[in-house]
Amino acid sequence: MTTPLGIAVIGTGRMGADHVRRIQEVISGARVTAVVDVDAERAKAVAGRVDGCAVHTDPAAAMASAEVDAVLVASPGPAHEAALMAAFARGLPVLCEKPLTPDAASALRLVEAERALGGRRVQVGFMRRYDAEYVRLKALLETGQLGRPLMLHQRHRNVASASFFTSDMLITDSVSHEVDVTRWLTGQEITAVTVLRPTSSAGAPEGLIDPQFVVLETAGGALADVEIFVNCGFGYQVQAEVVCERGTARVGDGHDLVTAMAGRWGGSIAQDWTERFADAYDREVQAWVDATRRGEVTGPGIWDGYAAAAVCEAGVRSLREGGRVEVELAARPTFYG
Amino acid sequence: MTTPLGIAVIGTGRMGADHVRRIQEVISGARVTAVVDVDAERAKAVAGRVDGCAVHTDPAAAMASAEVDAVLVASPGPAHEAALMAAFARGLPVLCEKPLTPDAASALRLVEAERALGGRRVQVGFMRRYDAEYVRLKALLETGQLGRPLMLHQRHRNVASASFFTSDMLITDSVSHEVDVTRWLTGQEITAVTVLRPTSSAGAPEGLIDPQFVVLETAGGALADVEIFVNCGFGYQVQAEVVCERGTARVGDGHDLVTAMAGRWGGSIAQDWTERFADAYDREVQAWVDATRRGEVTGPGIWDGYAAAAVCEAGVRSLREGGRVEVELAARPTFYG
Amino acid sequence: MTTPLGIAVIGTGRMGADHVRRIQEVISGARVTAVVDVDAERAKAVAGRVDGCAVHTDPAAAMASAEVDAVLVASPGPAHEAALMAAFARGLPVLCEKPLTPDAASALRLVEAERALGGRRVQVGFMRRYDAEYVRLKALLETGQLGRPLMLHQRHRNVASASFFTSDMLITDSVSHEVDVTRWLTGQEITAVTVLRPTSSAGAPEGLIDPQFVVLETAGGALADVEIFVNCGFGYQVQAEVVCERGTARVGDGHDLVTAMAGRWGGSIAQDWTERFADAYDREVQAWVDATRRGEVTGPGIWDGYAAAAVCEAGVRSLREGGRVEVELAARPTFYG
Amino acid sequence: MTTPLGIAVIGTGRMGADHVRRIQEVISGARVTAVVDVDAERAKAVAGRVDGCAVHTDPAAAMASAEVDAVLVASPGPAHEAALMAAFARGLPVLCEKPLTPDAASALRLVEAERALGGRRVQVGFMRRYDAEYVRLKALLETGQLGRPLMLHQRHRNVASASFFTSDMLITDSVSHEVDVTRWLTGQEITAVTVLRPTSSAGAPEGLIDPQFVVLETAGGALADVEIFVNCGFGYQVQAEVVCERGTARVGDGHDLVTAMAGRWGGSIAQDWTERFADAYDREVQAWVDATRRGEVTGPGIWDGYAAAAVCEAGVRSLREGGRVEVELAARPTFYG
Repeated sequence: MTTPLGIAVIGTGRMGADHVRRIQEVISGARVTAVVDVDAERAKAVAGRVDGCAVHTDPAAAMASAEVDAVLVASPGPAHEAALMAAFARGLPVLCEKPLTPDAASALRLVEAERALGGRRVQVGFMRRYDAEYVRLKALLETGQLGRPLMLHQRHRNVASASFFTSDMLITDSVSHEVDVTRWLTGQEITAVTVLRPTSSAGAPEGLIDPQFVVLETAGGALADVEIFVNCGFGYQVQAEVVCERGTARVGDGHDLVTAMAGRWGGSIAQDWTERFADAYDREVQAWVDATRRGEVTGPGIWDGYAAAAVCEAGVRSLREGGRVEVELAARPTFYG
Repeated sequence: MTTPLGIAVIGTGRMGADHVRRIQEVISGARVTAVVDVDAERAKAVAGRVDGCAVHTDPAAAMASAEVDAVLVASPGPAHEAALMAAFARGLPVLCEKPLTPDAASALRLVEAERALGGRRVQVGFMRRYDAEYVRLKALLETGQLGRPLMLHQRHRNVASASFFTSDMLITDSVSHEVDVTRWLTGQEITAVTVLRPTSSAGAPEGLIDPQFVVLETAGGALADVEIFVNCGFGYQVQAEVVCERGTARVGDGHDLVTAMAGRWGGSIAQDWTERFADAYDREVQAWVDATRRGEVTGPGIWDGYAAAAVCEAGVRSLREGGRVEVELAARPTFYG
Repeated sequence: MTTPLGIAVIGTGRMGADHVRRIQEVISGARVTAVVDVDAERAKAVAGRVDGCAVHTDPAAAMASAEVDAVLVASPGPAHEAALMAAFARGLPVLCEKPLTPDAASALRLVEAERALGGRRVQVGFMRRYDAEYVRLKALLETGQLGRPLMLHQRHRNVASASFFTSDMLITDSVSHEVDVTRWLTGQEITAVTVLRPTSSAGAPEGLIDPQFVVLETAGGALADVEIFVNCGFGYQVQAEVVCERGTARVGDGHDLVTAMAGRWGGSIAQDWTERFADAYDREVQAWVDATRRGEVTGPGIWDGYAAAAVCEAGVRSLREGGRVEVELAARPTFYG
Repeated sequence: MTTPLGIAVIGTGRMGADHVRRIQEVISGARVTAVVDVDAERAKAVAGRVDGCAVHTDPAAAMASAEVDAVLVASPGPAHEAALMAAFARGLPVLCEKPLTPDAASALRLVEAERALGGRRVQVGFMRRYDAEYVRLKALLETGQLGRPLMLHQRHRNVASASFFTSDMLITDSVSHEVDVTRWLTGQEITAVTVLRPTSSAGAPEGLIDPQFVVLETAGGALADVEIFVNCGFGYQVQAEVVCERGTARVGDGHDLVTAMAGRWGGSIAQDWTERFADAYDREVQAWVDATRRGEVTGPGIWDGYAAAAVCEAGVRSLREGGRVEVELAARPTFYG
């Protein structure tokens, strides 16, 4: 395939519009040929910055165009299932933002639908797997020189949460990243979740349970703990330390520009994910474009999206009811390797 | 008091002998006037290196000497209670190595005995409180600029455990330090303990549950997690990160001598506590000598030793039986301030 | 301009071939329409991986094509002047790899030629200016919060030098980067150079003066020192610390993935520039494509290439003859702003 | 020798008073039996805090006492020669604060006087040699695993200089430490000095040449550069990086307590030498007491003090006259090993 990949971007909110920019201005080998949004005006505004880009309010209509070779889904989570089913009907490959769907049941329907197609169609947007530091961490673990992973300590801190953020969303929206990272780094499914509640910060909005401390158990006996603190006030920090049998490895300290002044040495802390993971998003989309043009599907897929949904559901139950909640996963189709 | 403080050191094993050396060769204002050990030969060997040092097998006999102004107890834990009671009978101040006693019930008897004396007599050997980094961490928390502590992440790693080390001892011998640190840094008692068991390392002796992951809850709602891993193989690491409402603070990275060679930058990791905490021991003993000569008792005391024992007992129960175990503390004598 | 920028790449050696890959596979908005090399077979091999890419042995012939909108010069330094003059004749914008030309006299002829054209045509390949850390360092200096820069300590270390590397090339090929960084960060021309010779490393090839220690003086009185050590054996390190009136700032420590094992903590060190500066090259080329499509020329230009050449000539004289050598610069055309 | 060492402290200014405190309250095995100061009131105030401590205005009178076994000289530099000669006459061992004497000629007279005594009597107060990080750096170099040292990059920064500080004193008072460190770490004498003058900081007092950049050449061909900046404003930093044939090693980053707050991670910087080198002073004095009681003299000696004086004289000449100044050393008595 030597012509650029024609992509329909579904959803033109903050994330969708940023992907349009990325495809047009950062990565090579692709162009945006259609944008879709229920808000036609918003879609038009985004399309207006792209040469020859069609505007639709219905995903299926966009996918019917001969100019559309692939679909990037960045609409709200509840709209994902329908968009993916439409893409499946057209045989189009998909990059779907996380979460795959809002709950495990709908995610499992997508697992079944993709299985019925006889091959993977979807890459899910767990972009940590494309971050340079995480990539090196994974590579190091795979060499085996540190031995088996026994524990995984993770910190996930945001400056402040959006006004609509709920206590459940600390699990479903934020910790879902660590859920995927834990599964990916250990190569094991998560079997139980316990959510603990330290006293909430005075810096958190009234009523929000923040921070939370989540303990994940894996099928192979590894233990992963996650501090999620979405109103930490001081910066955006994503850190992980894997404790293995013969050593540990840590990412996320971010020691690049170091200053000494006014009695302090140190560096600045990124203030949000667009700063911290810009390169990872670039790599993610590029990997998808490249694989698609080769006729392949790589990276995290529907099964990964489903597993994350199932773990997060268990996490929300633990948050609400207390105690340890076991995770029930459907049988993994051999299809996913 | 202008003459050096005369100290009887009870117990001349590794720790006791090191304290003798410290008093004689490192700190000022004190000298060892008696050593006590059930093993008379061992005691004689240690005394032989000190001018005018008496040798006893019975602590009470040593304490009867006019040359003994104070007592340092470094015998095995089960012998502590009797030694302290003997010192109380003589009115002698004591520095007692941790653990105060092997269980909460005996520790509580010492609380009662000290209360009956009408004033503190004992400093307990939680030497982390004298480590320069911990001292700075505590001082920073006390300024209040970080806000209340919400979470405390601690790592405690040893290269390898001694042959006699049991799974319970990871709690009672190792985590007992973090128990005291958690109480000291938060200024709160611990109310519940949960011990989790990740898969054990292939590097641990057959049958030893190692690593363990301990969750401590405090009366004020803070959550402290402790990774204890006594056969990590790579070094001795003691790290703590306090997560507060407006920021975090971390000690134990130990970035002093940094090298770059053979494709790697970094530093060495201490291999045991004698290397990491030598200065802290010096400061601890000196503080005790100085306070004693002023007629005061400062630093961690019997109540701290008792609280640690009670928490560790709950921890061992959680380790053995699973689940969360609440800590029952006796009423705190007003006496302890 | 909505169609991709058609680029002729002059020179298909290691650097030229990498730029072809970058334009085709990494960045957006451009494509390679022609490659040029005196070695026609090498050019053909590179062109064979690109759709519709012409092959030439004469730069001027490539530039005559309607498919060529811009020129990237990656041929050996002695061929640069002719290639740029040919591009000037055609009115084509150019990205020219460093060094601009091998000596100050030829660089000055290009300054004159560009001035005669009435506007900048050329961006020179000093890619440090596009490295994320250096960009942040420059931005920090421009805020003025650290005060004026007084000193600049730089380290430039390579694992091993190529067999053809001469003692002069430590200045002209390696330190030329620090020459540009010094000029860029201080905003001042360099007025004198002193090259000092510590004892050469046993790890350097027989006869190569390595390491060298270079002191640069700027027009504003800042002092920049550069350690250049091209056979350090342990890694590729590029570090800079700016010492200002109220503080310092440092880049290049590269603390990303940190491990603890076998008694050591630390991270790995990049082994060459392709690893360390891959993102910077991407940003550099993208910036050029974008500016070119807007009809602008930005970034380092011919004057910067000339100034670097003049400083390096002084440096080579200092290396050969000893002592401090003053730098003579032509008057700066107002044209360069 | 089992009784404490009786020490006469000559000079009771800031440094002398601090040594009195150290001997009495920190280290073991010694006591202050006499203090000497031309200002009798100041001496009395210091002696008043020490049991049985005599007060003198004449060093020789103090040394005549049977209670004085050794002498610590902390008076101003110009008074050192007479005090040491008096101690030599009495056969008393001496710990002499740096600088040994204010100039090379007087230092050389002391070399001669000590040689005439047939054995070392004096330890000079270059306390960096007792700092834990420097001790580890020296030990690492001695293993030989990094190969020969080729370059030594040193930074010496103070918050602000005292009002009486002159441009020469940046060399004689501050860089003299790096002069000794360079000699000690390389094991080589310094053969030439060049002092360069970057533009002075607006933060320096009017007329003070600050910062300065000093290049030291050693007999073995190593090159040591020193940034001395005594009005850097932000903290007290003493850093050293040794560049060897197979790697580098660095001390002084001081990464102990690390915080993350308000968009920054990092640590605090010591504000003066009493904070940074308190432990080193303790170790220094203790080492001297211990060696003295064994009848030995160890550590840096008169030859080291003389060599530092000679190098500093060359440095001051370079500062004043510009250019490189060769260092002329007397023949080293075999006596010094």
